[in-house]
This record gives sequence, structure tokens and C-alpha cells, in this order.
Amino acid sequence: MSNLKEIKNMPTIKIRPATIDDSALILRFITELAIYEKAEHEVVANESHIRESLFGDSVKAHGLICEIDNKAVGFAVYFINYSTWLGKYGIYLEDLYVSPEHRGSGAGKAMLRKLAQIAVEKGCARVEWSVLDWNQPAIDFYLALGAKPQDEWTVYRLTGQALKDFAQKN
Amino acid sequence: MSNLKEIKNMPTIKIRPATIDDSALILRFITELAIYEKAEHEVVANESHIRESLFGDSVKAHGLICEIDNKAVGFAVYFINYSTWLGKYGIYLEDLYVSPEHRGSGAGKAMLRKLAQIAVEKGCARVEWSVLDWNQPAIDFYLALGAKPQDEWTVYRLTGQALKDFAQKN
Repeated sequence: MSNLKEIKNMPTIKIRPATIDDSALILRFITELAIYEKAEHEVVANESHIRESLFGDSVKAHGLICEIDNKAVGFAVYFINYSTWLGKYGIYLEDLYVSPEHRGSGAGKAMLRKLAQIAVEKGCARVEWSVLDWNQPAIDFYLALGAKPQDEWTVYRLTGQALKDFAQKN
Repeated sequence: MSNLKEIKNMPTIKIRPATIDDSALILRFITELAIYEKAEHEVVANESHIRESLFGDSVKAHGLICEIDNKAVGFAVYFINYSTWLGKYGIYLEDLYVSPEHRGSGAGKAMLRKLAQIAVEKGCARVEWSVLDWNQPAIDFYLALGAKPQDEWTVYRLTGQALKDFAQKN
């Protein structure tokens, strides 16, 4: 009977695709995640950018919303990436976030599992994401799932004026 | 006159979109790049994978071929990625390769510039790619272009049996 009681008391975690009506919520979650990542100043997206990039015509990135007992508690945004070595597509998880008061509820793992299921269904070879090197709780969580750090690689980025200048040179 | 002579002797570098007829060539270049990156054993793609993933219906990754005096000397493969902080798309360069005998010809820079131009035309906020930490010639080249290393981040990857197992758990 105790097992049954526990099951009854367990929160119901539901993962659903994000819709355009979630745009303001997604922007709030993006900002909360950036604050946690000590990069709030780097969030320049506004609600219109989110609506257009995630819910416009021919979108290339997708959102998931995690609800516990019908309340939105977190989100994920992902896109399809590609491996030449495998000749196959993969899933890249750009953002994964759970509100502080709902951490430890299984919401993050449930969203990651949903992405793993989408990857398997689509025939994608892998799921990848980036982690800040000081975020040890996240690193421990990901290692426990069987994820492997690609720590011999570093991403380089060309952006802003440097990108425009380079594009214009002959 | 000496300038004119130099111009006449300069090789003509042309960048064109890859076509399905380049599939075998692309697989050869992918393999040559993997050998250079000491990861030949990780190339499991065959020509059929390349045809399907780069030239099938609703493809999400794209190839460029670099020709010097009408001979293919290198290639690039890229896809569209996404930044939640910017609320904008970007370009991710999965592979960039120039045959050893044509290094120093400007072919690599010409392909990167073409990608920067595609990014600017499409309204993409940035161009990104990954570099092996021991590949100092590449790192020096990218830094000189104005690219910045994102060295506080590490990519984590869930793949193979670990991905399938995780997707199936409840």
C-alpha cells in the first residue's frame, strides 16, 4: 500500500511541444537560465525574436515545455545538427531549464528523455549540448546519464562586427 | 607590370554548392580530414549516407565545394544552429577541409568567407565551428580572423547504446 500512496503523491510531469502562446514564458525562462549562467547581459532576444525564430515559417529550432500538475516549470529548445563522420543527423539541445523551486522533481531528466526519444524516433545518432565548465551539479547529472564530454574540442565563434568585416573583404 | 603578372598567375578559387554527384568526393574529403584529426576509425558514413543526408528530401545540412582552376581541392559542410540568447539563427560549420597540396592557397579562407557571407545574407548572428585543442595551426588561423574561443563550455554527447537505453527508461 505504501507504494500506491507514493505513486498517488507523485507529481504528474508532462512534456508538450511549445506553441507561439508560450513565447513570453520561453523568453522569461531563457533569461532566468542566463542569470544562472552569469550571462544575463548576453540575452538580447525579445518576444518578437522568439515568436519569429521558434514559431514562424520554416523554423529550424523547436521548443518543449515541461508542466508539473499543469503548471509550466521548465523548457527545452533544440535543433537538428549533423555529423559528417556518421553521415547522420543528431539533436542539439541549446537550452534546458527547470525553475529553481522544481529542481530535483525529475523535470530536467524527463525533458532530456523526451529528446532522447525524439532522437531515436527520427533516426538521429546522438543528442548533444554544452555545459559551463564550473557547473558541477549539471556535469554530475549528465555523466550519470551516460553522456561523454567532448573535452578535446573547443567551439570558435565569429560574430558581430568581426563577422561583417570578414564577409566584406576580398 | 609585375602586379599584373602576379594577378595572371594567381589561381582562380571558386566556391560552389555541392551536388549529389559530389557524394563520393565529399566522403573522401571527410575521411582525409578524419585521418588528419586522428579519428579515421570514427568515420562510419558511406556514400549512401552522404547522398541521403546532404542531398535527400528536406535536408538540414549543406555542402560547399572549393575548386582551384576547376579542380576540387576542398569542401565545407554546414547547418543552421540557434541561439536562445540572441533569438536568432546562426551557421555551424561541421567540417572544413583543404587537400594538403593546396594548403596556403587561400582555399580555406575563401570557404570561411563564403560562409560568413551566407550568414550575413540570411540574417544569421554568427558562424561557429569546433577545433581540436592540439590543432595550433588551425587555432592561429581562426584567431587571426577575429574568431573567439568559447573555452568555458564543453559539449556533452549521449550516443549509441547509452542513448537507446536512456530513451527507453521510464
